[in-house]
Amino acid sequence: MRTHDSVSILIFNITRQCFVLVKQFRPAVYMCELERHNPEVFQVKDMNDCCYPRDLLPASVGVTYELCAGIVDNPELSLAETACKEILEECGYNVPVANLRKISSYRSGVGVTGSKQTLFYAEVKDSMKTDIGGGKAEEGELIEVVEIPLEDAFNFSFDENLPKTMGVMFGFMWFQNNVAPLLPQKIKTNKITPIP
Amino acid sequence: MRTHDSVSILIFNITRQCFVLVKQFRPAVYMCELERHNPEVFQVKDMNDCCYPRDLLPASVGVTYELCAGIVDNPELSLAETACKEILEECGYNVPVANLRKISSYRSGVGVTGSKQTLFYAEVKDSMKTDIGGGKAEEGELIEVVEIPLEDAFNFSFDENLPKTMGVMFGFMWFQNNVAPLLPQKIKTNKITPIP
Repeated sequence: MRTHDSVSILIFNITRQCFVLVKQFRPAVYMCELERHNPEVFQVKDMNDCCYPRDLLPASVGVTYELCAGIVDNPELSLAETACKEILEECGYNVPVANLRKISSYRSGVGVTGSKQTLFYAEVKDSMKTDIGGGKAEEGELIEVVEIPLEDAFNFSFDENLPKTMGVMFGFMWFQNNVAPLLPQKIKTNKITPIP
Repeated sequence: MRTHDSVSILIFNITRQCFVLVKQFRPAVYMCELERHNPEVFQVKDMNDCCYPRDLLPASVGVTYELCAGIVDNPELSLAETACKEILEECGYNVPVANLRKISSYRSGVGVTGSKQTLFYAEVKDSMKTDIGGGKAEEGELIEVVEIPLEDAFNFSFDENLPKTMGVMFGFMWFQNNVAPLLPQKIKTNKITPIP
């Protein structure tokens, strides 16, 4: 499978002390759950045996919490500029490139795509919110912007009933280690606690 | 793409205070780098223009550091048992299931496969090493077992010249937060330091 490099952004709203994530319906996740719970759907030999959609799982099982992210498809933009574009399109914040901090890069989907993803940290304020976000409907994106309060981040991260990517878990933990210690004391009291 | 759930294991050798990773040649990563550096290879219209392999990038650009991992393809084994099987096959350690600690699960490759991966932590000792590991040659696996000393883990994790998966970065950071504080003092002095 040929693919593009991508960027991913851990967004923290400093005004309201919350992480900003995107919640998306992912067809691949839905199909994966469908196969787990309704394997007969994939074993139909005669179309008369076909399951109707009403027999299937609710759409909510295909929903995943993810970091804001996007592919690098415009060679005229730097990685950080691409990240800013995605933050605006998906989450509605107009963030200056200077507000971005590169965390690192790594390989995603090594068994399938092998592309390189670069992870940024972006600190945003309510005053930067200029749009509702939600992604580009014309590209088929169905994105909901969700906010996870800092004090809930640890429980959110390890609650397996809330399907998420490892990027979210890594991002929250990186924040705990690298940003939380620098926050004002008032906020630090809410810092994510380690596993008991 | 239909796919299987998978397990992934952060392995720490307590005898020699090092992480145990696998280093693999990943065709998808190689092809991705090839497209980046030799895009002409993918634009050949006439086979007489075809590049010979000697013109291409060295195989090393397709090598990635990863956590030991494997797909869940035997319904008779629990996830932890599957993880133990992979540890033995890939890394050569015979680990009792009781030595495994589940960290969490998450969605991998949400855009392509959407499968669920469960991450375990396994503490191993030199005395558990009963095999050389290296994966199953008959399944085309080309795996090298590598050890990353605890004191090098932070630099390794954020060195972008060493291609790795986010699982490695997440695992090392999780260890720092959850296991390192419980290690004897002698070892704690080597603990991974935060980004300056």
